[in-house]
Amino acid sequence: MARTTSLSGFPEWLPEERIVEQHVLDSLRRTFELHGFSSIETRAVETVEQLLRKGEIDKEVYGVSRLQQDEDSSREDALALHFDLTVPFARYVVENSGYLTFPFRRYQIQKVWRGERPQEGRAREFTQADIDVVGDGTLAFRYDVELALVMIEALSELPIPPFVLRVNNRKLAEGFYRGVGLTDAPAVLREIDKLEKIGAEQVSRNLQDTVGATPEQAEAALSLAAIRTEDTSFVERVRELGVSNNLLDEGLNELAEVVGEASRRAPGKVVADLSIARGLDYYTGTVYETVLVGHEQLGSVCSGGRYESLASSGKKTYPGVGLSIGVTRLVTRILSRSMAQASRSVPSAVLVALNDDASWSAAQDVAGQLRARGIATEVAATAQKFGKQIRYAERRGIPFVWFSSVAEDGSPTHEVKDIRSGEQVAADPASWQPPAEDLHATVLRAATTDD
Amino acid sequence: MARTTSLSGFPEWLPEERIVEQHVLDSLRRTFELHGFSSIETRAVETVEQLLRKGEIDKEVYGVSRLQQDEDSSREDALALHFDLTVPFARYVVENSGYLTFPFRRYQIQKVWRGERPQEGRAREFTQADIDVVGDGTLAFRYDVELALVMIEALSELPIPPFVLRVNNRKLAEGFYRGVGLTDAPAVLREIDKLEKIGAEQVSRNLQDTVGATPEQAEAALSLAAIRTEDTSFVERVRELGVSNNLLDEGLNELAEVVGEASRRAPGKVVADLSIARGLDYYTGTVYETVLVGHEQLGSVCSGGRYESLASSGKKTYPGVGLSIGVTRLVTRILSRSMAQASRSVPSAVLVALNDDASWSAAQDVAGQLRARGIATEVAATAQKFGKQIRYAERRGIPFVWFSSVAEDGSPTHEVKDIRSGEQVAADPASWQPPAEDLHATVLRAATTDD
Repeated sequence: MARTTSLSGFPEWLPEERIVEQHVLDSLRRTFELHGFSSIETRAVETVEQLLRKGEIDKEVYGVSRLQQDEDSSREDALALHFDLTVPFARYVVENSGYLTFPFRRYQIQKVWRGERPQEGRAREFTQADIDVVGDGTLAFRYDVELALVMIEALSELPIPPFVLRVNNRKLAEGFYRGVGLTDAPAVLREIDKLEKIGAEQVSRNLQDTVGATPEQAEAALSLAAIRTEDTSFVERVRELGVSNNLLDEGLNELAEVVGEASRRAPGKVVADLSIARGLDYYTGTVYETVLVGHEQLGSVCSGGRYESLASSGKKTYPGVGLSIGVTRLVTRILSRSMAQASRSVPSAVLVALNDDASWSAAQDVAGQLRARGIATEVAATAQKFGKQIRYAERRGIPFVWFSSVAEDGSPTHEVKDIRSGEQVAADPASWQPPAEDLHATVLRAATTDD
Repeated sequence: MARTTSLSGFPEWLPEERIVEQHVLDSLRRTFELHGFSSIETRAVETVEQLLRKGEIDKEVYGVSRLQQDEDSSREDALALHFDLTVPFARYVVENSGYLTFPFRRYQIQKVWRGERPQEGRAREFTQADIDVVGDGTLAFRYDVELALVMIEALSELPIPPFVLRVNNRKLAEGFYRGVGLTDAPAVLREIDKLEKIGAEQVSRNLQDTVGATPEQAEAALSLAAIRTEDTSFVERVRELGVSNNLLDEGLNELAEVVGEASRRAPGKVVADLSIARGLDYYTGTVYETVLVGHEQLGSVCSGGRYESLASSGKKTYPGVGLSIGVTRLVTRILSRSMAQASRSVPSAVLVALNDDASWSAAQDVAGQLRARGIATEVAATAQKFGKQIRYAERRGIPFVWFSSVAEDGSPTHEVKDIRSGEQVAADPASWQPPAEDLHATVLRAATTDD
């Protein structure tokens, strides 16, 4: 991976790397569809107005405008590339609500763009894979449990190291803060969010300096954030802190439902982590993030949460819960640490060799018979010496070379050579089948996915 | 299809329409991979310099820049969204030539953007599906034949009306024009290109006025452009015009090879059409375009050609041949004329109903067993009355509803209802299988694809 791309932050894969990415995308699609999520795509651009509605991130947004503006275009809305799939999805739901069935379950796998300073794990163009369920007016809490389960299943299918889904609940945190007398919950959360970066001592000082907490209040907030359990025992740990508040109770019940069910179905994959804050303000209940064990510094590879009002239109509101996988972040790490690789760099399983230039059409007939059985096949373009044709297959990683000739009695004869072993056997184009593992380029997990 | 999108020229599909688009994309991918083409994707942006190298199309290009420029960004190259997949592919080949095996066969399916005035068949954001073979220094002519065959096969798999691939050859035309004394071949081609729009008489006048042709030369050029044959008989028709030129001979041989092989393998799908010019200047031999029979006014849905130097780097040149399908143009027409539709609007084949709220986890167990066999399954989120749960499945188009209960002896019992027929039968979650046609949402061609 010494190769660098000509535009920093815009990764492009070689064909064999692209096979790994396609494997990840196909696997996600399969899991999402098995759980009944419909695919949608939204356009790459939104109006600038729509994109900046939610807050102060305009520095990251790429504006889009025709290089040659004319009198027409001055009347057009200013456009920009979307920076996530949530804002476009919210717009899509409002725009098409009359054509959708609620609760609406969708997955969406697309590129997004952010003009941030590029570094590993942070590109300017990258692919996200989102699932959301959105209700019309209301949405059962159960979906918070279900979406965690779907994402655990989706991530488990990928060639990545063990991961942990960390879950928290905004109601729990906010109720607890109120219970100890801290009323500006978002401000407290903002400070708690810095815990991993600046440490408990500094967070405590910040809470006292900027939120006006007493030392005891700050300590209580930090005690809450220190709780991490792989089962529902966090409830007891919170109770031991002696705070009582209705919203806290609600949050504890919700989080216990998510963690209880997920830990029962996927032991060790989920942690109740009461320090998780997630920056975005629209989350109102469950929040999720996911780290790869041993790669925590990569940041979260799958995040999301519950929002009481993702979108609204007139009197209608659309609550939802969703999670987003950073596909490019994952694939970049898979490739840079050789966690998986393609079994070959081309789809082709067979190269049909040419005896002479006139046999090209007959060779296409053979190839057609193989393709009809799903065997990816190329035909040599020119009748070079067989040694050269075999070396071409070798360089491309094509495992089999097919030879046809005409016997003395005029009947065609066929042989196929496995160029890895050198073994060459008679074969019938109407029935020959390569070993199952050679039929398609496959993605092989490295023996150890840890680095 | 009364639905309109909020931004003209940026089509977005409803979930059931997206299933049709995905069917088209999956089908193309399958055909391309069966023929040994590797997938690549290039970034959405190129430098403006790179994009405008080939000519005067800057009015159509969307520039991209961060909304909040800072001191850093003034040093960055000006960027713009790609308007096709050929220019980015050329850049990719030069940039990665050391990592690729030539001849390099790739397919590329991505969105492109053009700031043109939107109309049916012409969007501002649309998907193209390209195949190209590119050589290092040289590329056998045979690939011109092969690529026509691959695209005929790819298009034949789609739910579209009959189509015709029209093929011509720049050498043939240029050699013929030189043979009659017209030396500015590109100028002649530009006029011939207007034939369908303005008619033979006006083209003849233009040839005389702007290219300086004599009436006889103009007539000869028009006679050539009038030749259309479904086999190689065009060779004789051209010979009858009595023009001799070496380049003409070369072009006749090449075109005869493409049309001969393609008409033998796919009778009626290919036409030698000596009026085809194709606008882009970099084509140097074979040129292709494709129309849907009865939808000619939609324009070409699959075009391309041979280029002697798509890309060059120092002393190296990379000749190639390629074709590009206008996927969005095809899908828009399929949907607007109801040529095909999805069998249902969701992936789900089964909804597992809930007896009571406590049975959700057991219902997930049943769903997990079904999903393990590839059956897309949802679980009801709340234990509403069965009638309501069935109506939910009905509204979403889910064909089967699963009911579980506990018998008097404590053993679980299961039944599955086909909500279309009302038939309800006992079923085992470990072995039940829906009819094959209900397993996935499929795309059904309309009885007649003609309108």
